[in-house]
Amino acid sequence: MRIVRGHSEGRIVWGHLEQGDTVHVISGMLGERTGETLPLSALSLLAPAEPSKIVCVGRNYLDHIKELGNDKGDLPTEPGIFLKGPNALTEPGGTVAYPAWTENFHYEGELALVIGARASNLTPENALLHLAGYTCANDLTARDKQKPDLQWFRAKAADRFCPLGPWLETELNPADLKVQTRLNGKVVQDSRTANMIFPVIDILVYVSRYVTLEVGDVVLTGTPEGVGPMQPGDAVEVEVEGVGVLKTVIGAVR
Amino acid sequence: MRIVRGHSEGRIVWGHLEQGDTVHVISGMLGERTGETLPLSALSLLAPAEPSKIVCVGRNYLDHIKELGNDKGDLPTEPGIFLKGPNALTEPGGTVAYPAWTENFHYEGELALVIGARASNLTPENALLHLAGYTCANDLTARDKQKPDLQWFRAKAADRFCPLGPWLETELNPADLKVQTRLNGKVVQDSRTANMIFPVIDILVYVSRYVTLEVGDVVLTGTPEGVGPMQPGDAVEVEVEGVGVLKTVIGAVR
Repeated sequence: MRIVRGHSEGRIVWGHLEQGDTVHVISGMLGERTGETLPLSALSLLAPAEPSKIVCVGRNYLDHIKELGNDKGDLPTEPGIFLKGPNALTEPGGTVAYPAWTENFHYEGELALVIGARASNLTPENALLHLAGYTCANDLTARDKQKPDLQWFRAKAADRFCPLGPWLETELNPADLKVQTRLNGKVVQDSRTANMIFPVIDILVYVSRYVTLEVGDVVLTGTPEGVGPMQPGDAVEVEVEGVGVLKTVIGAVR
Repeated sequence: MRIVRGHSEGRIVWGHLEQGDTVHVISGMLGERTGETLPLSALSLLAPAEPSKIVCVGRNYLDHIKELGNDKGDLPTEPGIFLKGPNALTEPGGTVAYPAWTENFHYEGELALVIGARASNLTPENALLHLAGYTCANDLTARDKQKPDLQWFRAKAADRFCPLGPWLETELNPADLKVQTRLNGKVVQDSRTANMIFPVIDILVYVSRYVTLEVGDVVLTGTPEGVGPMQPGDAVEVEVEGVGVLKTVIGAVR
């Protein structure tokens, strides 16, 4: 099932998206149907999550580690985690201004997870049961600010640096999904979640050992090889098999 | 004026704390008085903020940079920023279990700021006008996980790693306040905010260039020299001049 979030005539609604593009309005991300329906076209889609935090994995595909020159012969022994705040979310189809303070603004297509039940100290057996669903993310990165800065703050967590959507897919096996990114229609990233160093379950078990994941929290699972720069006017599409396409447009320098 | 947050008989209240320990209940952090009053003793204090993110400055006092061996002769030219999520908050007087996964669990006493008006691209002239108030923070740190990990996630952002309080002080000049930390009554950190490399205004201007600060967001301003390890059973007090004392107890290993 697909769960959408959007605004329509001044209010924000969650809904179940069914075939024929009918949205059955629900009382919240995990709520019951209210009986109201809307056509999908009546909804301006929003990022399908209301997180208290966005937890991200860096360096989770070997080919991506190599392309950034971070391969010193050792695979990471634990997931490398960093945070973004809710300020980073951008709606599906949204425009993200090219920040005036970077000269190397990169896309990173990823599978994203949205938490559906409060989660602490998850086990491999119960981890996936705590998810509300799966979606696409673009982990926007000011590449030139990662190494000089003490931590990845402005490089990763600036306003609108996390396009998310277009909706949550609730029924999906995340073990081996195609993850593809297209820049102005050209395929630039093309891999499968089976290539993750730390699969989805391992990420959830690790992260929830240290932080309690709340309903609505978002977990980004890392990006494969093929990251690269964007320019004003570019259109980036992240597609996760079984979910759909997340499109983002890069706006003028600001 | 002092603004407190606490729970009392199953509900969470905000209030103005006046002399004689009377709490005048208000409708929210910045709300109007409802007319109800409570004695302070009827309230179990909570962290005085409901943040969407906690933005922290690392390496903001020269003597602290030196003690950690991070001094390579250069002062930082920009604030080094990292994030914690709301999961990190701990109430004043609270107990934080000693995490089983660290062998070097440190206190870091700091002045904290709480945002009172949505803030983006602040200027030196208007930055302080966007604060609701000032309080004390203890930036708990698993020191042994900072260097080995890709980013400061579990080292800084684990559950309950941000004791905050005891209340907000609204009328304060942050330019030259004493910041003192006591471990089991012994003074271990003793400095003044005038020793910050980046003063409060500079931090707010820098951070708000990259992220929009929301009402309730918390900004930690860095710790002075004297950080060190804690053990189960220790009591740590962070005192900021003009605010009060934030006490935290370290619980058994868990």
